[in-house]
Amino acid sequence: MDAKPDYSFEREVLVRFAHCDPAGIVYFPQYLVLFNGHVEDWFNEGLGIGYAHFIGERRCGLPMVKLDCEFKAPSKMGERLTLSLGVTKIGNSSIALQLRASAQGQLRVLSNQVLVTTSLDTNKSIPIPGDLRHALERCVAELGGLRTPC
Amino acid sequence: MDAKPDYSFEREVLVRFAHCDPAGIVYFPQYLVLFNGHVEDWFNEGLGIGYAHFIGERRCGLPMVKLDCEFKAPSKMGERLTLSLGVTKIGNSSIALQLRASAQGQLRVLSNQVLVTTSLDTNKSIPIPGDLRHALERCVAELGGLRTPC
Amino acid sequence: MDAKPDYSFEREVLVRFAHCDPAGIVYFPQYLVLFNGHVEDWFNEGLGIGYAHFIGERRCGLPMVKLDCEFKAPSKMGERLTLSLGVTKIGNSSIALQLRASAQGQLRVLSNQVLVTTSLDTNKSIPIPGDLRHALERCVAELGGLRTPC
Amino acid sequence: MDAKPDYSFEREVLVRFAHCDPAGIVYFPQYLVLFNGHVEDWFNEGLGIGYAHFIGERRCGLPMVKLDCEFKAPSKMGERLTLSLGVTKIGNSSIALQLRASAQGQLRVLSNQVLVTTSLDTNKSIPIPGDLRHALERCVAELGGLRTPC
Repeated sequence: MDAKPDYSFEREVLVRFAHCDPAGIVYFPQYLVLFNGHVEDWFNEGLGIGYAHFIGERRCGLPMVKLDCEFKAPSKMGERLTLSLGVTKIGNSSIALQLRASAQGQLRVLSNQVLVTTSLDTNKSIPIPGDLRHALERCVAELGGLRTPC
Repeated sequence: MDAKPDYSFEREVLVRFAHCDPAGIVYFPQYLVLFNGHVEDWFNEGLGIGYAHFIGERRCGLPMVKLDCEFKAPSKMGERLTLSLGVTKIGNSSIALQLRASAQGQLRVLSNQVLVTTSLDTNKSIPIPGDLRHALERCVAELGGLRTPC
Repeated sequence: MDAKPDYSFEREVLVRFAHCDPAGIVYFPQYLVLFNGHVEDWFNEGLGIGYAHFIGERRCGLPMVKLDCEFKAPSKMGERLTLSLGVTKIGNSSIALQLRASAQGQLRVLSNQVLVTTSLDTNKSIPIPGDLRHALERCVAELGGLRTPC
Repeated sequence: MDAKPDYSFEREVLVRFAHCDPAGIVYFPQYLVLFNGHVEDWFNEGLGIGYAHFIGERRCGLPMVKLDCEFKAPSKMGERLTLSLGVTKIGNSSIALQLRASAQGQLRVLSNQVLVTTSLDTNKSIPIPGDLRHALERCVAELGGLRTPC
């Protein structure tokens, strides 16, 4: 019997001229900018929590504390990447995510990331705010549990 | 009597965290990256000429030779910018464009740009390739002429 | 008799992999990031006014309101660019600058820029703070006057 | 008895306005751009192998295949970061590096990276070219061995 599908928030992005390096492929830090934009879209559209409002008005930060990436194959200008995001762990003041970039049925980048919720006024970690925790738990529950990191 | 509307290719983009500076507003070079992405979308979707193919396979360049910008009001993270593009002049080997970024009914950035068609092999200017010229002329004709630069 | 030399604050920067596009030359918005960094160095080292302190602690902004650039020749990865800056006008709440990027005796980019002093708390323009005005006037006087824009 | 010091190539960089996000601290992908620039300086100045020539003329690529980062403390605009690099492993066609960014005696970012030597013409991995291997071995030998990853 098949495993239940992982929760996954997906969007497509075009590999643009501005993402590419002199070798004509995505410059690796640009994947991280794209993944960050994907987390932003997930907040806005998946969790229903306005990212700009969360950072700008509520003065919450979401700094990354841990990042692992495997770059499995290059991506070329003009390709369409599918970005996908799953939650792997919800801590007290941290959220672990797995992000993937794929194109043409091929995994290009696999990334595990740990973000921490902070106060931008004190620069210290704070417990995940209630509405965010609630939205995270709803997301995870909808698809039968956390994604397994790999 | 109203003037005929300018030809205008429009798309919306979200002002993302990654576009903003420590003042919480769009860092000005990011507008130019957004405008460049808009030219890319215009090639792909407006002119019907694949931008990545034009650069990558046909080895044509589109370097900018002249750029004027007025930054009229700041844009904040979370706003949706409307990017609009009109052709102001078609030369022998150059294309003059006007780009605008607006939000909430307010013009934020107005930019006039001159791009030149080149060969990436010789790094010299070349006449605008026939299919591109044809697509440009069709675009301009559809709305009754070139946009007036301002 | 030779004209008096323009006031000029100069620094060298390496054209890095990260500055270059799939055509192997500096992606044009990167020149603007480099020029912004040069203004930063000029504040710190030429004017003797800490840029980070000016923005971060004193909460003054320096948004650009007007930008003109001519891109005269491309710059390749590995080249060393000489960035040079001169003051062309000191207004009540605005500073006009001319920036140049050159390499191998050849002007690559010429840019005229107008920056405005603002309060980051009100987002409105403010008169140029006294210490900054004083430093600007000293700079200009040292070399016999404002640079002529061109 | 003290351990022999790790081999370390060090340079200082200023945290610039352009590196910082709306929270006023370095936007994490910018650390990776800074580390990439540090690898570039290390090639040019530490290994004596021109990075731009290696990529541009010899058509060798150095794509990253694996990246781990720990972001231990934020860095603010105006701080001076010390970037340091050590070799942790030399493979057949791969080089493992450890990079650190520190300021004020505090480790800010620790990163382990694996780069692979490729041909830009075939996009396949190639054995580390002889002159690069020789330079790498000399670097490591000078300080009594590989750095221990941590």
